[in-house]
Amino acid sequence: MIKSRAAVAFGPNQSLKIVEVDVQPPKAGEVLVRIVASGVCHTDAYTLSGQDSEGVFPCILGHEGGGIVEALGEGVTSLQVGDHVIPLYTAECRECKFCKSGKTNLCQAVRATQGKGLMPDGTTRFSYNGQPIYHYMGCSTFSEYTVLPEISLAKIPKDAPLEKVCLLGCGVTTGIGAVLNTAKVEEGASVAVFGLGGIGLAAIIGARMAKASRIIAIDINPAKFEIAKELGATDFVNPKDHDKPIQDVIVEMIDGGVDYSFECIGNVQLMRAALESCHKGWGEATIIGVAPAGAEISTRPFQLVTGRVWRGSAFGGVKGRTELPSYVAQAEKGEIPLDTFITHTMGLEKINEAFELMHDGKSIRSVIHF
Amino acid sequence: MIKSRAAVAFGPNQSLKIVEVDVQPPKAGEVLVRIVASGVCHTDAYTLSGQDSEGVFPCILGHEGGGIVEALGEGVTSLQVGDHVIPLYTAECRECKFCKSGKTNLCQAVRATQGKGLMPDGTTRFSYNGQPIYHYMGCSTFSEYTVLPEISLAKIPKDAPLEKVCLLGCGVTTGIGAVLNTAKVEEGASVAVFGLGGIGLAAIIGARMAKASRIIAIDINPAKFEIAKELGATDFVNPKDHDKPIQDVIVEMIDGGVDYSFECIGNVQLMRAALESCHKGWGEATIIGVAPAGAEISTRPFQLVTGRVWRGSAFGGVKGRTELPSYVAQAEKGEIPLDTFITHTMGLEKINEAFELMHDGKSIRSVIHF
Repeated sequence: MIKSRAAVAFGPNQSLKIVEVDVQPPKAGEVLVRIVASGVCHTDAYTLSGQDSEGVFPCILGHEGGGIVEALGEGVTSLQVGDHVIPLYTAECRECKFCKSGKTNLCQAVRATQGKGLMPDGTTRFSYNGQPIYHYMGCSTFSEYTVLPEISLAKIPKDAPLEKVCLLGCGVTTGIGAVLNTAKVEEGASVAVFGLGGIGLAAIIGARMAKASRIIAIDINPAKFEIAKELGATDFVNPKDHDKPIQDVIVEMIDGGVDYSFECIGNVQLMRAALESCHKGWGEATIIGVAPAGAEISTRPFQLVTGRVWRGSAFGGVKGRTELPSYVAQAEKGEIPLDTFITHTMGLEKINEAFELMHDGKSIRSVIHF
Repeated sequence: MIKSRAAVAFGPNQSLKIVEVDVQPPKAGEVLVRIVASGVCHTDAYTLSGQDSEGVFPCILGHEGGGIVEALGEGVTSLQVGDHVIPLYTAECRECKFCKSGKTNLCQAVRATQGKGLMPDGTTRFSYNGQPIYHYMGCSTFSEYTVLPEISLAKIPKDAPLEKVCLLGCGVTTGIGAVLNTAKVEEGASVAVFGLGGIGLAAIIGARMAKASRIIAIDINPAKFEIAKELGATDFVNPKDHDKPIQDVIVEMIDGGVDYSFECIGNVQLMRAALESCHKGWGEATIIGVAPAGAEISTRPFQLVTGRVWRGSAFGGVKGRTELPSYVAQAEKGEIPLDTFITHTMGLEKINEAFELMHDGKSIRSVIHF
């Protein structure tokens, strides 16, 4: 049992509390990781708000981390102490029906227990004053030390800066992957990105990497447009500047609509707008944002019968252990400008400020340095 | 001006009236066709019911025909008098943005006027007692003589029996094409077909042609199961036999859901069920049925974010002039058993009986012989 500094969410809508928790050693197939840095993502705030049906408290949030392997449980063979790793909330076991399908990255090996805040054996490795603390998304990167299944860790080169590439553990990879892996945007295509948070900005990077001809950045906060432009967006639309539905604006602007759209917020009305912004005959809308529990999307079926396609993407369709190292390599080469995303850095003790900056739309990403 | 026997829909929810209408000669780019046979399709009944927002009266319904070219308007080069043709409610101009995209069959060359019951010049070729009668879906095959744009006619071999291959003008091609062209079902896949009317049965043929391993036929009328089995269905589900939602039944039955599903009715609740019957990670639902005006589909976005895809299909994604001849050839070789679909034949004077048989679920297709 070791001691670890952690930001604990004791209940929904409460500030995180920095305490010293107990961490049990890794069991068979598990790995103890020392977290070096962790991004703070909207999904952490979403769960903290109490809207996430899978949210259980008390828990240690955080799922966008970078760390170093400290100890191995029995039978772990793919990692060694000292390896640098990015925790994966979407595991990759390479053995389940999903991993073997060749059609999805949604490995289900540890899904059931992960969704309950537990390790695969149905217990937690964290406790505080003898009471169990739940894991979060299988990662819990807001703790100096955390325990993960071996299949939930992507090994990356030791020379990659963990305080930057930690962002590839969620938002940046999700946005780029949705464009390249899920939608498979082709050269010359037109793309609309709804919402210019971390995921939306990453989707713009992905669209630029795909050599899209038009990249339309959409947000009600025009302060986001400058950075979107820097990353490759060619057109900028603030729905507040228009009286008509935003889908009508896009359809007129791009001669019938875009080839591909991406919803990067989690708003079901915007998901509909993103679909209806697509070109008749072939436009494809990809949902990336996570909607509140119980919210539903809707549209007239005619939208689909006339050739539009509605799909979604989780972690950008990326198989973490296999593909994340190539994302790290692209970041190292400057093709993925991670620095642009990091607007704030701070110590763990200031983590509640990171949530405030995010709520106020003042940050893209705050990165916690342990 | 020639005289033509036709079944006219003078208003919504009225029986068709057999009268002699006047038909103007074809204008530039148009063709006069003598209809030899025409299927009666649910879409005709849908428009007659008054629910179709594009329905205009008085009109001549019918869009599943086979005929012979009788006269050519100025400038028509791709057809000759005496050619056998199948009218196309989805034209193929080969010149518009849609035709050139390589991504869709939804040619828009004559779409705007066709949707208003008019020829491309904005007028009608039909009249009765001097009053104009509207065209329907650009076809109006419930008339002995009809006029169509050249780009709305697929030329087929003269030895193909028009009173059978007329069914390739809509339902049969729509069902098969949705499976092969739109969803691209692969060998060994599992398929669920919701609704065993003409389109659903054709989807079963398509699934068998694609060598699907499981083909689940779903209908509340178990009398349809025998013919579905004959065409290749392997499993049969009557939602009335189950207390729980049909999607839950399918997901349990096929170990997580099917790889592909097809909604062949036009019921928005079934469209949702078809999507939610799909396997997490990769299942794709294709909407073929036409819903009542204003009806909307809905689901939780989580369904898509976890890998399901929602799409639609019109005329099976088939480009009529280019691809329909190969469907005719497959029917001639017995690969598409059109005889199975034709449960009734009758003269034009009995056309209202064909609508009654369809409403009562007693026919698959009635074919009108002129």
